[in-house]
Amino acid sequence: MSERGCFLTFEGPDGSGKSTQARRLADRLRAEGLTAVQVREPGGTSTGELIRALVQHTPSQEGLCSEAEILLFAASRAQLTRQVILPALDSGAWVVCDRYADSTAVYQGFGRGADLEAIVAINRVATVGIEPDATFLIDVSVPEGQRRLAARRAESDATYDRMEGQDIAFHERVRDGYRVWAGRHPERIFTIDGEREADAVEQDVWALARKKLL
Amino acid sequence: MSERGCFLTFEGPDGSGKSTQARRLADRLRAEGLTAVQVREPGGTSTGELIRALVQHTPSQEGLCSEAEILLFAASRAQLTRQVILPALDSGAWVVCDRYADSTAVYQGFGRGADLEAIVAINRVATVGIEPDATFLIDVSVPEGQRRLAARRAESDATYDRMEGQDIAFHERVRDGYRVWAGRHPERIFTIDGEREADAVEQDVWALARKKLL
Repeated sequence: MSERGCFLTFEGPDGSGKSTQARRLADRLRAEGLTAVQVREPGGTSTGELIRALVQHTPSQEGLCSEAEILLFAASRAQLTRQVILPALDSGAWVVCDRYADSTAVYQGFGRGADLEAIVAINRVATVGIEPDATFLIDVSVPEGQRRLAARRAESDATYDRMEGQDIAFHERVRDGYRVWAGRHPERIFTIDGEREADAVEQDVWALARKKLL
Repeated sequence: MSERGCFLTFEGPDGSGKSTQARRLADRLRAEGLTAVQVREPGGTSTGELIRALVQHTPSQEGLCSEAEILLFAASRAQLTRQVILPALDSGAWVVCDRYADSTAVYQGFGRGADLEAIVAINRVATVGIEPDATFLIDVSVPEGQRRLAARRAESDATYDRMEGQDIAFHERVRDGYRVWAGRHPERIFTIDGEREADAVEQDVWALARKKLL
């Protein structure tokens, strides 16, 4: 039986660069000779990808209610945890996840004002009781995040998804919510200034991740 | 503003005849001049029907984990409650629902051994805090339920869904679980002997439903 792997998650608003950082960290872990599994939320399993499509592009004639949204994200998380994350960790692999349970607490709890205690109870089921060993919160101001998203859309001709299409006040609540949430979990969530060049951010992430290697 | 309608649910194992009874009750309410909305779980909305398909016929190469199943049923319930049940009740209509939150408690909690307290917390979110005014538990023995299901399948050439395909011990736990659960909610759940002719069962249901009319 190999030693259990490490579970690392990235959090932050869209446009923070966390997906880039998640990919770079996984690459760097592999360069160290470790097995690294990279996943994203929602999605990561075929059931989860169906749920992702359902949540992000639900028919507009029937708006998805906030409770259903929370529960669908949680269902995708449960399937990903049971099917991919736990087996990978058990086999000794490191798992790098782009968004996890904290996203539901912050986006639905702080962003939409849903009952945070209920979300925590639902997350306990969805995560099968596991917690990340470390979470990197890539923090950017709302204007900077929006500027990057606009640039990305201009390049790719992509359409807004449900979350990105929210108003600025929502994004401000999310950013503030992330900071409050990180303050409640100081032993696990590390806030990193995401307004710098990607290389500088990567260096900070790696310095923190390396501590888990030792 | 019209008076708030009444929310009535049917519970019981597959093969108990509860779907027939739900239809008959809705018809009878309409014959009394009431507006009756009949829905089923999981499903009842286009989001819910997608979830229903996902739960009942998930690809076998990737078994749906029990946590994801609970959360998907709950998501479908939340959407149905917000989009159909609450507006109907507010408009003064009566709502007759074939399965509701009790099904998750009994099938996943008693049937599969999932944490009942967590299910209750999840149901509180999924039901937006509402409860049926009355629940009719149509009780049949496992052999009788199985016999009826086999007859139905022989007629329709239908395939097993995930729940029906469980072993006999599971169905026994479900039947016993329904009885325990009804014992915990005596003010709301009425157990009706479903082994008799449909007309006799209907008479009992109607006698109980009429009390809500007075």
